[in-house]
Amino acid sequence: MVCPDAFKGSLTAAEAAAAIGQGVTAARPDARVDRVPLADGGEGTLDVLAAAWGVDPSRARTTDALGRPTDAAFGVTADRRLGVVELAQASGLPGVADVPRQPLLATTRGTGTLLRGLLDEGVDEVLVCLGGSATTDGGSGVLRALGARLLDASGREVGDGGGALSDVAALDLDGLDPRARQVRWRLAVDVTNPLVGPRGAAAVFAPQKGARPSDVAFLDAALGRWAGVLAATTGTDVRDVPGAGAAGGVAGALHAVLGAELAPGARLVAEAAGLPRLLDGADLVLTGEGSFDSQSLGGKVVGTVAELAAAARPDGARPDGVRPDGGRPAPPVVVLAGQVLLPAARTAEAGIRAAFSIATGPSTFDELAVHAPSRLTELAEHVARLTLR
Amino acid sequence: MVCPDAFKGSLTAAEAAAAIGQGVTAARPDARVDRVPLADGGEGTLDVLAAAWGVDPSRARTTDALGRPTDAAFGVTADRRLGVVELAQASGLPGVADVPRQPLLATTRGTGTLLRGLLDEGVDEVLVCLGGSATTDGGSGVLRALGARLLDASGREVGDGGGALSDVAALDLDGLDPRARQVRWRLAVDVTNPLVGPRGAAAVFAPQKGARPSDVAFLDAALGRWAGVLAATTGTDVRDVPGAGAAGGVAGALHAVLGAELAPGARLVAEAAGLPRLLDGADLVLTGEGSFDSQSLGGKVVGTVAELAAAARPDGARPDGVRPDGGRPAPPVVVLAGQVLLPAARTAEAGIRAAFSIATGPSTFDELAVHAPSRLTELAEHVARLTLR
Repeated sequence: MVCPDAFKGSLTAAEAAAAIGQGVTAARPDARVDRVPLADGGEGTLDVLAAAWGVDPSRARTTDALGRPTDAAFGVTADRRLGVVELAQASGLPGVADVPRQPLLATTRGTGTLLRGLLDEGVDEVLVCLGGSATTDGGSGVLRALGARLLDASGREVGDGGGALSDVAALDLDGLDPRARQVRWRLAVDVTNPLVGPRGAAAVFAPQKGARPSDVAFLDAALGRWAGVLAATTGTDVRDVPGAGAAGGVAGALHAVLGAELAPGARLVAEAAGLPRLLDGADLVLTGEGSFDSQSLGGKVVGTVAELAAAARPDGARPDGVRPDGGRPAPPVVVLAGQVLLPAARTAEAGIRAAFSIATGPSTFDELAVHAPSRLTELAEHVARLTLR
Repeated sequence: MVCPDAFKGSLTAAEAAAAIGQGVTAARPDARVDRVPLADGGEGTLDVLAAAWGVDPSRARTTDALGRPTDAAFGVTADRRLGVVELAQASGLPGVADVPRQPLLATTRGTGTLLRGLLDEGVDEVLVCLGGSATTDGGSGVLRALGARLLDASGREVGDGGGALSDVAALDLDGLDPRARQVRWRLAVDVTNPLVGPRGAAAVFAPQKGARPSDVAFLDAALGRWAGVLAATTGTDVRDVPGAGAAGGVAGALHAVLGAELAPGARLVAEAAGLPRLLDGADLVLTGEGSFDSQSLGGKVVGTVAELAAAARPDGARPDGVRPDGGRPAPPVVVLAGQVLLPAARTAEAGIRAAFSIATGPSTFDELAVHAPSRLTELAEHVARLTLR
């Protein structure tokens, strides 16, 4: 099983998986090599899942964070049961980088349009990758595109964007697309920030979306008001839910209104790619990333692969993977990385049998990046020769 | 089994073995770890063998290459059956670095004195490590210290050094210490140069011992004359024997007169250290060196360890080490190195299962050298976790 993350700055996850797979095949030509490139819910996740599902990403007309027409990609499994949308595709900062940022007006409505398209496909489950948003609209745009209405005290619809939430008095869900309540929503969330307050969506993330200090205060208050309306309408108060502040509050709104589950992106992607089932039969699991460091074990791809591999081991197995009942042991997980910064003991605690760098001696960062494909192939060949019979 | 060479510029073989062993123990606290630091017959071999034998090197009074009194070290096993001498100890360039070099006069007599001391210990076998000599005396000094006489045409003894060989007309072995003929002589030789000619001891090695071009021609002719005398006396013509030119011709003389075997230093050292027997029971063999490159498989420590480990596998075993008769497979050999310059496929052909660098990412040579002990420990821990149960 070859299931790396991207090597940032040098290889996509697919390129890394190809390089590693080539090394395994060189060592053991008759080995079956399953390549499942992974991602952590950030940029590139859609491509990774489309490849895992054997489909091409679809494209649809929608609007960007400032309401201008644009194209954006989404993915649906061949059996149309599962779909994936990256919020940054329609509502991300890159799409509006050509004009001054509008932190109070930016909206996630375009992502909502994409999601309505997904519902048209008839999916049972939707995975939304948060991150990279240009918005602090509390997810109101998404909900509106799905048929919700946000009303002010006099019953008129408020405008788009986070700033307008300062006027919101009621949420009307009567027009909400009924299919939105029938599917399972899962949100790839890699932050634990709450919706409001000093660690909230406005305080922490709005400045990089163009908010001045006064905007931050205004947006924080508006999100607080919005949280009150959400709580009054749905019975769910998301103000202090960890991660509710992801993507300018999209996580909070979809959790409150649609019961969306928040989970680490790497795990959701691995599950959507079918990794747990594939790990069960593996003799060796090769994962990797550019830098294997303290962050790697905190919800990133590599740590998640280790967790899932360990979960493929039934209760009662010993830490070394041997099962006292004589059953198949958990597959050893080996990390191949541009750099390895964690000590071996820490690596072992995380269920990772070994971690090796692609460096073959003294070298610069640029040399490693340029030679990453061939070095990764070589390293995988060494590890495969050492471990596979 | 932990049996590295030195990591030149950063770690002695003993230090490398200690670092590697520490990593194995960290991974598998109950593993039995045998540490056998190795050497290739060059500088440090005596210390390595003394450590392997569990003895301290002995010191004796002798003379340097210019005949001045000096101390030099030698080693004898605790059971006094096997002794080792490094020619460079008594007859090396460092010992005479304080005065102008004397290529025509420099003599190996001091090494012969040491060897006579070894015979006094009652050893059955003597290992002489050639290399680093200041001499081009055709080994005449060694033979004279053991009782031989070199005579000119008028029956008078000629002087010491290679220059005097131009007058040699006869070799009188009547006074040769009889014990010298009874012991087994093995010479660690890592060159294939013959005694004379354009690739001979004078042409290739005398310049670095201070010989001007005219000295080289004179010494080459003198060695040719000496070879004729050796052939006439012993019946063995060593003029074209590969390696006879080692250490200014010591190899040729001891081969002709005493039947000394010439062999690569790494193999002789490994055998003298008892490696073949220890490898037989090993589950994992960790060797290593500073630079694992094309030279490593040509008679160096790492290649020799791989050969000896493969030899621990009886005929009929498959290349992957599995024995069809169900017997114990050959132990996997893994190389841990400062830098790994050989491709995995070439490594595998040499019977080495895998090779890894201590580099953990971008780094300079100096960083690797400074951190070599801890990196080696970490790397060994990773490999041990991956391979040992």
